[in-house]
Amino acid sequence: MKSLNERRTIRHYTTQPVPVELLNDLLAQSFRASTTGNMQLYSIVVSTDKERIAALSPAHYHQTAIRTAPAVLTFCADFHRFSLWCRQSNAEPGYENFQSFMNAAMDTLIVAQTFCMLAEEAGLGICYLGTTTYNPQEIIETLQLPRLVFPVTTITIGYPDEHPEQADRLPAKSLIHNERYYDYTPEEIRAAYTYKESLPESQKFIAENNKETLAQVFTNVRYARLDNERISENLIQTLRQQGFFDLGKC
Amino acid sequence: MKSLNERRTIRHYTTQPVPVELLNDLLAQSFRASTTGNMQLYSIVVSTDKERIAALSPAHYHQTAIRTAPAVLTFCADFHRFSLWCRQSNAEPGYENFQSFMNAAMDTLIVAQTFCMLAEEAGLGICYLGTTTYNPQEIIETLQLPRLVFPVTTITIGYPDEHPEQADRLPAKSLIHNERYYDYTPEEIRAAYTYKESLPESQKFIAENNKETLAQVFTNVRYARLDNERISENLIQTLRQQGFFDLGKC
Repeated sequence: MKSLNERRTIRHYTTQPVPVELLNDLLAQSFRASTTGNMQLYSIVVSTDKERIAALSPAHYHQTAIRTAPAVLTFCADFHRFSLWCRQSNAEPGYENFQSFMNAAMDTLIVAQTFCMLAEEAGLGICYLGTTTYNPQEIIETLQLPRLVFPVTTITIGYPDEHPEQADRLPAKSLIHNERYYDYTPEEIRAAYTYKESLPESQKFIAENNKETLAQVFTNVRYARLDNERISENLIQTLRQQGFFDLGKC
Repeated sequence: MKSLNERRTIRHYTTQPVPVELLNDLLAQSFRASTTGNMQLYSIVVSTDKERIAALSPAHYHQTAIRTAPAVLTFCADFHRFSLWCRQSNAEPGYENFQSFMNAAMDTLIVAQTFCMLAEEAGLGICYLGTTTYNPQEIIETLQLPRLVFPVTTITIGYPDEHPEQADRLPAKSLIHNERYYDYTPEEIRAAYTYKESLPESQKFIAENNKETLAQVFTNVRYARLDNERISENLIQTLRQQGFFDLGKC
């Protein structure tokens, strides 16, 4: 899979539209991916209308990728459709719980990544929007998602209008453990992150944010504790609102 | 990607081992997949030792795939390594919360599926074990996973020793919504599931389980409410144990 080794996340797209037939064809192929008990616990909302994309944009903080993308796909965990089928089949569904959300979220992410790989093979560029779980309520309202449907991730897609530097990755051996998890020594941590820290863009990041270390940019600016905690509470509240967290105790 | 259209989940493997170098090479390639903030919030534990695989087997109810697989890969959400790096870099990590788990779980599933597609292109067969989130404690103990590491999914892998019928899929159009979520009419639900219900294996499933409808096999036998609720409570408890659910209120 040549495109994988050469891949870059693409955030700037040309104005060339992505034909809806192509999107539907790539999605249909992606539905061959593995799925929990062959239940296919996902729905994909495809947005190509400029106004509809603009309506999704605030939930994603108007980031570059959604401002120029000709198409935006919101991948949703969906136990609603399956539950409707159960009720029509004289069966009482029992999926208003966290494990069912996890099953559906896993199905959803597996399909999303399958779709992304197919799209990149077809010459398209994609970007995952992690903001999907930051502001799920806004997305739920905009896309009119019913109970037991939850937006898990969003893909912006289009023809690339940039060729950025390829992002660095940690040494593979730092991420693979043989037979059991071997905890890291301080030297192993240093070895894993030295290259990343040495990169000019990392140095730029540190300077721009007025920090001492690259890690401080992550802990104080990009993924800070208070933000994570606020997002966590909101996420759990929204899971509850969508019916996926109906536990007596927790 | 020809192998995707032709893919089948493989649960019976030949005795031919999968070279560890091949697994490591496929994993290294898969690490090019998208990742949250380029943090690569995952670790993979590769088991090829027969005794180590046997030790994992009870957590997966000794299902066929793990009994014959020459290799088993446990894909774990991992904020431990990143947090160690932060502490070594004079930065205070704030990842003991649910959103951080979600970010790490998403990274993990995206890498897992990328690995699976590469493995299938290389002629290997794979099976996802959904049981990973049913008995996470046992897996955590067996693999000695530290706090902030959580087993999200497991892949059994080997050279195929079967060529099963390809599983059915719902009509693609039943899973795709244009611009917003359009709720299903009873007729649309019927149309989506009629083919699945008509299959001989579905009829066999209903007869074997002494049920009236295929949906009842799901709601009363395979994914029953009480099981889902029990698994949900255990999953949340284990997330808390691993440090990913440190919320004052929930």
